[in-house]
Amino acid sequence: MDSDQAAPSSTSSRPRVAVLGARGRLGSAICAALRESAEVDLVAELGSADDLGALLERQAEVVVDVTTPDAVMANLEFCVGHGLHAVVGTTGFDAERVATLETWLADAPGVGVLLAPNFSVGAVLMMRFAAQAARFYESVEIVELHHPGKADAPSGTARRTAELVAAARREAGCPPVPDATTSELPGARGADVDGIRVHGLRIRGMVAHQEVVLGAEGETLTIRHDSLDRSSFVPGVLAGVRAVPTRPGLTIGLEHVLDLD
Amino acid sequence: MDSDQAAPSSTSSRPRVAVLGARGRLGSAICAALRESAEVDLVAELGSADDLGALLERQAEVVVDVTTPDAVMANLEFCVGHGLHAVVGTTGFDAERVATLETWLADAPGVGVLLAPNFSVGAVLMMRFAAQAARFYESVEIVELHHPGKADAPSGTARRTAELVAAARREAGCPPVPDATTSELPGARGADVDGIRVHGLRIRGMVAHQEVVLGAEGETLTIRHDSLDRSSFVPGVLAGVRAVPTRPGLTIGLEHVLDLD
Amino acid sequence: MDSDQAAPSSTSSRPRVAVLGARGRLGSAICAALRESAEVDLVAELGSADDLGALLERQAEVVVDVTTPDAVMANLEFCVGHGLHAVVGTTGFDAERVATLETWLADAPGVGVLLAPNFSVGAVLMMRFAAQAARFYESVEIVELHHPGKADAPSGTARRTAELVAAARREAGCPPVPDATTSELPGARGADVDGIRVHGLRIRGMVAHQEVVLGAEGETLTIRHDSLDRSSFVPGVLAGVRAVPTRPGLTIGLEHVLDLD
Amino acid sequence: MDSDQAAPSSTSSRPRVAVLGARGRLGSAICAALRESAEVDLVAELGSADDLGALLERQAEVVVDVTTPDAVMANLEFCVGHGLHAVVGTTGFDAERVATLETWLADAPGVGVLLAPNFSVGAVLMMRFAAQAARFYESVEIVELHHPGKADAPSGTARRTAELVAAARREAGCPPVPDATTSELPGARGADVDGIRVHGLRIRGMVAHQEVVLGAEGETLTIRHDSLDRSSFVPGVLAGVRAVPTRPGLTIGLEHVLDLD
Repeated sequence: MDSDQAAPSSTSSRPRVAVLGARGRLGSAICAALRESAEVDLVAELGSADDLGALLERQAEVVVDVTTPDAVMANLEFCVGHGLHAVVGTTGFDAERVATLETWLADAPGVGVLLAPNFSVGAVLMMRFAAQAARFYESVEIVELHHPGKADAPSGTARRTAELVAAARREAGCPPVPDATTSELPGARGADVDGIRVHGLRIRGMVAHQEVVLGAEGETLTIRHDSLDRSSFVPGVLAGVRAVPTRPGLTIGLEHVLDLD
Repeated sequence: MDSDQAAPSSTSSRPRVAVLGARGRLGSAICAALRESAEVDLVAELGSADDLGALLERQAEVVVDVTTPDAVMANLEFCVGHGLHAVVGTTGFDAERVATLETWLADAPGVGVLLAPNFSVGAVLMMRFAAQAARFYESVEIVELHHPGKADAPSGTARRTAELVAAARREAGCPPVPDATTSELPGARGADVDGIRVHGLRIRGMVAHQEVVLGAEGETLTIRHDSLDRSSFVPGVLAGVRAVPTRPGLTIGLEHVLDLD
Repeated sequence: MDSDQAAPSSTSSRPRVAVLGARGRLGSAICAALRESAEVDLVAELGSADDLGALLERQAEVVVDVTTPDAVMANLEFCVGHGLHAVVGTTGFDAERVATLETWLADAPGVGVLLAPNFSVGAVLMMRFAAQAARFYESVEIVELHHPGKADAPSGTARRTAELVAAARREAGCPPVPDATTSELPGARGADVDGIRVHGLRIRGMVAHQEVVLGAEGETLTIRHDSLDRSSFVPGVLAGVRAVPTRPGLTIGLEHVLDLD
Repeated sequence: MDSDQAAPSSTSSRPRVAVLGARGRLGSAICAALRESAEVDLVAELGSADDLGALLERQAEVVVDVTTPDAVMANLEFCVGHGLHAVVGTTGFDAERVATLETWLADAPGVGVLLAPNFSVGAVLMMRFAAQAARFYESVEIVELHHPGKADAPSGTARRTAELVAAARREAGCPPVPDATTSELPGARGADVDGIRVHGLRIRGMVAHQEVVLGAEGETLTIRHDSLDRSSFVPGVLAGVRAVPTRPGLTIGLEHVLDLD
């Protein structure tokens, strides 16, 4: 079976979607939601032991990869090589991996890959709004709150938000945030990510929450995202699945498929 | 003195600014801030009894009007007629007033007027972010909190936010927000503004605060603005003063001069 | 089997507990938790079709009733009559029912019944703290946020909180809360419960949340409770089960068994 | 003039109050408020250069000390020695100073001294509620937010709250708070105060704010205090002034004069 056969048919109203990593917690939640969705046709749910050939047998058009950093590159080489679009939620893409992926895509015109390290539309909006607002405020700090079983602090989303805020401020020529602290109990002022302070709370009963606090003379702006359930990732996955066949080449970040402005 | 003489000089590095309504609470706060600002040259602070001729004598280039709905139209006729740009914080502009203003501006090419019903950059950002996010969420409601001396409920900003949110949802084809309430103590579900519920709290110790709460399956996004002091209006006034000489004709809304996106 | 045999044995280290209403959503969550608990011995899980005689056969000592207003009185008559202590989460106890219950208890010295309309320790603490703080603040309002499938507005907890706050203020001789509203879009100021304003939001993605906002000159105090899962009721049920054998007669309100102060 | 003459007259309806430290920011705010108050008679406003003899000349009954750690002990020796009650907002009382003060009070039966390191009723309530709730929750953390001109982090109130929470948990036999963090960017998890994590934000536009976040399986409780203005200290000072003549000896903490429970 060659890639022509697997290419999306323009007459198909619902994309034929496969999920890789379908046995994981995120993957099984996505499968459950795609099965219910009237927008897509879920044709394959593959775990790590399954053969990728099933993607071709079942004529998948778009592949959602929520596997692991170890598995994702081989999966993408297969998909791109066989003309399958991919929506990738797996993290761990450094510059080298991105370059490799772009080489593969150069040989597969018409194939689209979306790297979406965060499928949550709300988290993406929070990061975007924070970056847009950052240059209007003297002060910005980030507070993230998660369940106490989380191993890393701060969260990846908090770290990423701080980087985006810092970049937006550098671009706008903002001075450093003001801070007159001279006497600090170690850790009281949080972690420093590119000059932006980030604070991580670990609280039983919490799931995944983040607050970006911005302040200027006489006013503050707070953007808060509360994620309570994996079901919140489904709209982001669906937006990616809808968009990726129409975006050949590599797209990094869910924000580009949300039609913001 | 004709309008040529009063027109902004392109060689001037700092705009010559006058304030109308300089004796009011907002006006005097703005004057105090402009006096301190290195960006502008405050040349006139006029109250309701002062003669507008002073604007010409002191060669004002940009006029900030924070007077009253009764006074503002005569002020603007004078400014536009004499080639002075205007930044207007006074409220009460209906379609008729806007049409009149546009007639005057048609006869004064090069003159810019900015109507900014809200000088708070934070409030403008909150409204914009709420409208952008609105179509991604099934539910949206607004809570505003003010001091107990406030006469109207909900606040003008809350009402305006609801209208913008409702318009964004209509444009995106969103269904009505879900609400299964069958038994309601009168008022418990707030006021209905274009299908969006708005709740107003009146609390001693509060100044002016607003929260837009958006929710979808498994996640919520909250955008909160806290305004504690009139000093927060200064950056918005300055942004208007900087921008208006370069925007001939009528501009409605501070958001257009904040270089968002 | 007479009541002597079913009476709690003082040598038993873990109370023998039965659940009535075990097939309901709350009941099955409670059963699941009690099965895991090292503190109690779950000896019976009865649904509406099951015979109450099983309580005696399995030598239950404490009965948790989470049935319905229709069923609860017959259940309690049986329990009290057979010397079984009861912890009751079922709502709908008016003065008449309370009087009947007290008559039964008068004939069963040593038997304890706890009526706990809210098993959430957090909700009970929020109500208590709000009532304690109420007399120190000029203003108090309540905001509750629930999923959009809820039929009543405001929530029972919000209404109860408002009543407790209003009672505490009356007792302390506080004047009415200040409110200068003269122009109100209907509903903007919320529902009036004993002079306290209550606002209900219905937001997809929310579960059950409440905020009590208190304000005085120059400061505000906010007490917020977020309930995300039925598992949060378990500590309250356990506190009731532990306490009720030592509290003969009728106890109304979980707060009395939490050893506050 | 001996102390008998300065002792409070039981026929006086309004206590005669003097303020030491009346030229400082807090002191002048307190004087302004006491001058307006119908409850007290403000008879002296002394700065650091003024002679304490004025307290006797003007027949002060209660002295409010908001001076400095350097000055306060001499002031208190004078007050206690002359039979004047004292309400002390000055901080820096270690065990040695407390012991000295108790020695003086032992020789002055009937004289009361209240040490109130925090005059804010709201802050006192927040600390008390946090300590009461602490044993019901697996997790507790504290977030404080202040203006960026503050020199120390965390704030004294946050540190004190953490100590009270930790003490309450020790007394109740609570295990340590859960935290699975294995990979931490330095500072991300905040400062450790007696095992309780404390996070300090420094944000332009903020004044003094604190949030205590408590969490258990399926629910969280948040207690937040926002202090916007020094005027918020006045009710606490008044409560102290009213209470101290009736509480001979030493009282530490405003909470004891607020008639909680």
